[in-house]
Amino acid sequence: MTQDPPIPSGSTGTNANRTGSSIRMHPADNVAIVVNDGGLQPGAVLADGPVLVERVPQGHKVALTDLPAGSAVRRYNVVIGHTAVDIAAGAWVNEQRLVMPGAVSLEGLPAPQPPAELPPLTGHTFQGYRNADGSVGTRNLLAITTTVQCVAGVLEVAVERIKAELLPQYPNVDGVVGLEHTYGCGVAIDAPDAIIPIRTVRNIASNPNFGGEVMVLSLGCEKLQPERLFPPNAIPIKSEGEFDPSSNARGTGFAGPLGVPPLPGGVTRSGAGGSTVMLQDEKHVGFMSMIDSILTQARVHLERLNRRQRETCPVSDLVVGVQCGGSDAFSGVTANPAVGFATDLLVRAGATVMFSENTEVRDAVDQLTRRAATPEVAAAIVRELGWYDAYLARGQADRSANTTPGNKKGGLSNIVEKAMGSIVKSGTGPIHGVIGPGEKVRQKGLIFAATPASDFICGTLQLAAGMNLHVFTTGRGTPYGLAECPVIKVATRDDLARRWHDLMDLNAGRIASGEASIEDVGHELFQLMLDVASGQRTWAERWKLHNALVLFNPAPIT
Amino acid sequence: MTQDPPIPSGSTGTNANRTGSSIRMHPADNVAIVVNDGGLQPGAVLADGPVLVERVPQGHKVALTDLPAGSAVRRYNVVIGHTAVDIAAGAWVNEQRLVMPGAVSLEGLPAPQPPAELPPLTGHTFQGYRNADGSVGTRNLLAITTTVQCVAGVLEVAVERIKAELLPQYPNVDGVVGLEHTYGCGVAIDAPDAIIPIRTVRNIASNPNFGGEVMVLSLGCEKLQPERLFPPNAIPIKSEGEFDPSSNARGTGFAGPLGVPPLPGGVTRSGAGGSTVMLQDEKHVGFMSMIDSILTQARVHLERLNRRQRETCPVSDLVVGVQCGGSDAFSGVTANPAVGFATDLLVRAGATVMFSENTEVRDAVDQLTRRAATPEVAAAIVRELGWYDAYLARGQADRSANTTPGNKKGGLSNIVEKAMGSIVKSGTGPIHGVIGPGEKVRQKGLIFAATPASDFICGTLQLAAGMNLHVFTTGRGTPYGLAECPVIKVATRDDLARRWHDLMDLNAGRIASGEASIEDVGHELFQLMLDVASGQRTWAERWKLHNALVLFNPAPIT
Repeated sequence: MTQDPPIPSGSTGTNANRTGSSIRMHPADNVAIVVNDGGLQPGAVLADGPVLVERVPQGHKVALTDLPAGSAVRRYNVVIGHTAVDIAAGAWVNEQRLVMPGAVSLEGLPAPQPPAELPPLTGHTFQGYRNADGSVGTRNLLAITTTVQCVAGVLEVAVERIKAELLPQYPNVDGVVGLEHTYGCGVAIDAPDAIIPIRTVRNIASNPNFGGEVMVLSLGCEKLQPERLFPPNAIPIKSEGEFDPSSNARGTGFAGPLGVPPLPGGVTRSGAGGSTVMLQDEKHVGFMSMIDSILTQARVHLERLNRRQRETCPVSDLVVGVQCGGSDAFSGVTANPAVGFATDLLVRAGATVMFSENTEVRDAVDQLTRRAATPEVAAAIVRELGWYDAYLARGQADRSANTTPGNKKGGLSNIVEKAMGSIVKSGTGPIHGVIGPGEKVRQKGLIFAATPASDFICGTLQLAAGMNLHVFTTGRGTPYGLAECPVIKVATRDDLARRWHDLMDLNAGRIASGEASIEDVGHELFQLMLDVASGQRTWAERWKLHNALVLFNPAPIT
Repeated sequence: MTQDPPIPSGSTGTNANRTGSSIRMHPADNVAIVVNDGGLQPGAVLADGPVLVERVPQGHKVALTDLPAGSAVRRYNVVIGHTAVDIAAGAWVNEQRLVMPGAVSLEGLPAPQPPAELPPLTGHTFQGYRNADGSVGTRNLLAITTTVQCVAGVLEVAVERIKAELLPQYPNVDGVVGLEHTYGCGVAIDAPDAIIPIRTVRNIASNPNFGGEVMVLSLGCEKLQPERLFPPNAIPIKSEGEFDPSSNARGTGFAGPLGVPPLPGGVTRSGAGGSTVMLQDEKHVGFMSMIDSILTQARVHLERLNRRQRETCPVSDLVVGVQCGGSDAFSGVTANPAVGFATDLLVRAGATVMFSENTEVRDAVDQLTRRAATPEVAAAIVRELGWYDAYLARGQADRSANTTPGNKKGGLSNIVEKAMGSIVKSGTGPIHGVIGPGEKVRQKGLIFAATPASDFICGTLQLAAGMNLHVFTTGRGTPYGLAECPVIKVATRDDLARRWHDLMDLNAGRIASGEASIEDVGHELFQLMLDVASGQRTWAERWKLHNALVLFNPAPIT
């Protein structure tokens, strides 16, 4: 339903106090949202619609007909709530006047009736770095994996030194990234849910942008021992009984997540090896010896990374994660539909596209199971969302804990309305697969990567899944970025795109003002994705803006 | 019991294969730990003890008598477990051979029988920065509080600019600290347990080292709105209904956590004011305008901070947090007893000393309730530990999830043994008060600040409590540091102190080798605390090593 073209009403640019511009998403909807910057005043006339009886802010909903208390309010042809009071035609339908529906039951959901596979799309390529395991990077980064937060301070000093002293010698390497996180010790590492943060750290290490070079910085006594992080490959750090001071874990090869066996003598196989520097190694005498060890090992990896060359790759080598954050009512009207259009193009070209954000798909679960390519996919969707329901309930919360003050200011009354606008990023095709939080994606097509909706956690988990390109839509505006992967930011509104002209990479607000169609912006985004994947820098990259990796740890800390 | 002097056996420096050095903590103990570097070989003789029948690593336990299967194993005169197999005198008592006791019940605990108040200690002072609210800083830092992780990338760029361009103009200011964290949005902010991370961020902002200058960086649409972070003081960001574009939150004064009312026109009261920069402020056009706003506001705070002067302060103005991490069997023999001795000196001088780490006091809860100064304190200890038991159980874990591979390599067989060595940091006096995680401490004396044992979370929560000096003991070795507060690191072993000579601030290992007494090292530590509080830099400060703030969020994310 969400793929029907929105129905604009009136024109933009006329006297906003007299003639209003609004968008209704579906002919069956009984509300429309105000397009005009600054909202509309009482007396404004909507073309083919009522006269406003009160002020309605931009992005907020106007009743198109009288809605007596208890009426179903439809947007996207979905009931997003029932009126709590009588609402007259032309009045503001806001969250105080709307009673949110209960969650859709996870039992008795529609069986898969997937749409037909989308027609193939050929002829598009990008310039990427092909790795030994077949994956393709869009950037060429030295990543230093950490087993534990304890090493973060030392890592930061080392990374500064690597940037200043080593990187200039390796001009083909785009940068060095310390994969700092807050996990690794002081956590209930044997609790059932601990698998999520552990596999997240593990899988991020083999993100395609890191070229198969896995360099690990460990403290030594932490719970997340290197061999626990990367089983089943043993590295010579003893895990039980006595610590052997003759063991030197510094620079020792181990197989790493790509499963290539280690070579002796600290030499690791080109393009597919790993190494560990351990701070508690007995050989380290004084702080600078730790820094020297890290720099020595970094040089080994930089030598190999520097030999990577971009080559022509089919679009099917892209692993794109789509996400929205700081959403408003335009997210589901402009940016997210344009992303959905591009998602379809990518899937048609054989790429992998992941959509995520559990609480923002929960209210559309019936749409998702219907779109599942197989009953197994439908069952996996239900399993992941059911697990998440239980996780929230354990903390006395539910999916309605999503929606922020900014969402509401932007016109989104509740999570149902937000979800309907969020899921359109997934396009129109069948859903081919599902992965759990922190898992690696191993298939092409449209994938539901079940993650929390938190921007950083979702981004971190999509990185773990193998994302090599990130698309992020925002209505309220966020300077979001990741150090590990380029992030294309798409504005939902002209005003945001104008003010944040050097932070937003694409303006989908033109869809609301009628200057461009969803298809236009979708095609532009698709081309921009190929350009950025080929090396064109995003605004966040130019300003070096990036957020922290944030792990999803549903297990206790200790 | 833990305050009895340890009983060394044998001498150090002799042939370690023939004559061993060991320490028994209490005359009733039936195990002792090996002191010799590298451990002891079969045939080594312990003075007044058995001949070793197998190799025993350093820090590990030797059976002093035959211990048939099922025997109670006593260390610190506490039963730390029962033998799982027959263990002969001179054999290794390790975690595989020891069955851990169940947790002490939280019901029917001993009523308070507190020891007498310690005699007052006078005549000691330090040079600190006295704040308007009476608190005293040991450093003079500009801290920039964040409401949400979204702003972290922008903050990092701004902090670099402040360091390079502004700090040189304000020589009395020690530094600028971006208080980055992963909370603020994408979280179930109305869940019952959300109060913990929220009050933590709030209370850190008023840490004494920041001089009452509260500068906030906000995105705008986040769940943790500035006025939610700092109630009940309103700042002119509207929280409901429409966002008013005429509102300029940039540089606007608000009362801040110290409760001083705002002045008009963005000017805040000297020494007790706050300000907010909001990135989504409509006045921000382009990225550099955001950076300029932050620098403009930072200058206002730096002007005032630069006027702070150190003055002579009594020891009672210290708020010391004690912690251990990367512990080994020597932690409870050398460094922690020395810290405990210094704790007693501080409490005698009227200071506040916080000990923490729930899972590392849980097995000593009966000792704690007995030491409680009042029945209310005893009840609060039981309440906090009971809450934590339930928190762990919700995630299918218990206090035994504490202890790391490194603890075990270092000789600590289980959490009971670890806890007995951990609690000695609290000294010998009555326990005067209890605070929950993230709460501010508001009294003098010995305080149980109930926090997880995770190094970073404990440190973060002690910062929120108002800590102005941190003492951290380590046996395995960690480069731990905080940007917000000096951290004195105390090594438990000579070997660590020797190798990490420029990371450890004090060597308590001399206690094990007989070169110094607990009292000697305790007095040295006390003097070092006064010196560091007065401005002497720790090793972590000299190398600029610091770990992330890590919030304790037991509530779900969304």
